[in-house]
This record gives sequence, C-alpha cells and structure tokens, in this order.
Amino acid sequence: MERVDLDALRWNETGLVPVVVQDVENSDVLMVAWANREALERTLDEGRMVYWSRSRRELWRKGDTSGHVQHWEELRVDCDADVILARVHQEGAACHTGERTCFFRSLTGR
Amino acid sequence: MERVDLDALRWNETGLVPVVVQDVENSDVLMVAWANREALERTLDEGRMVYWSRSRRELWRKGDTSGHVQHWEELRVDCDADVILARVHQEGAACHTGERTCFFRSLTGR
Repeated sequence: MERVDLDALRWNETGLVPVVVQDVENSDVLMVAWANREALERTLDEGRMVYWSRSRRELWRKGDTSGHVQHWEELRVDCDADVILARVHQEGAACHTGERTCFFRSLTGR
Repeated sequence: MERVDLDALRWNETGLVPVVVQDVENSDVLMVAWANREALERTLDEGRMVYWSRSRRELWRKGDTSGHVQHWEELRVDCDADVILARVHQEGAACHTGERTCFFRSLTGR
C-alpha cells in the first residue's frame, strides 16, 4: 500500500483533519473526531488515538478519562489527503453516551 | 432505532455536515464528502447520494458524470447530530482515481 506522511496532509483552515474511526473487529463506523498535526504525531508515537477537542480546545487522549482507549491497527489517508481513516481496537464504548458507536440513530425526512 | 430529522442537524459554520460513506456489501469506508440541507433533502428524496461540492460550490449528484452512483440503504446520524453515516450500494468505484475506496494509502510518521 502506498504511504503518505504527515507533511503531505492538507489541513483545513483551522489546522485540522477529520478522522473516521472504524472498529477492526466488526467494521462498524464508531465515530468521527478531529486531529491537528500534534494529535496525529502522538497517535503515531503512542499506538492509540489522540484527537484535538474542538470544544475544549486541547489535545484529547481518547480513553484517559473514560478508559475507552482506541488502539489503532491501521491509519489510512484519502485520495485528497484531507481525511484520515483509523481502524482501531476499541476498549468499551466509543460514544460518550455509552453506546458502542456514535451512529445509533437514523436520519429521516420531515 | 431512534430517528432524527433534518431540523435536528447541527451544520458547521458554512452550513455543511460531513458524510461518511460505507459500502454495505463489504463494510469498507469508501469516502467522506460534505452535504448541505438541500443535498440531504435530495438524498432522502432520490434514494441516492447527493453532496455539496466545496470546490465547485454546487450540488453534486454523485455518479451523474462517472456513472458511479451510490444508492443508500441506511442513513445514520451521530450522537452530536453533526456527522452523517451513509451505508450505500456503490456502483463502480467511489474514488475519482478509479480505486474502489478513497482510503487506499497508509499514513506514516516522518
């Protein structure tokens, strides 16, 4: 598989990229979070997902508070180099509601 | 499954939400695109994915040019109501490069 390094990423106007998180065990899409360069450097170094919390404006080492750590198995980059796909082993629930995935609701029209 | 309608969505500062697209047949994450309210209304009405092209600044009915239409089977909303997960039947390739998924490259450190 072709490899892309951090220098090739295209950050948005606030210096972030979206990160789609997929469970490697059952392939469920668990959540979408955001990362800046430092978050991805720490993710690469530590073997677990580190994000940028847009609400708290600080690095967010997923699981430090909840215990719901995400150990990544594979990190991929899309064709435009502006989205990351993290394939992870999820401890416990990905969602702060306690659901395993954040996508537990269905979209309907009016 | 709990249902959420378009009025409950939380659009970003440019009136968009990210849409994560997953292949229902093999569970691969295919791409991430963006949608405004009109794009999601048309998606719901037409049974196929319609996005907002940020580069062309126009509605993007996926597959109109390429033939690579995405028929959605299920649309989900995340816990914060600011990301959509579309589970689709993909005709042909999702990626403009001709790859089936946009995530065909691996992220590495320096």
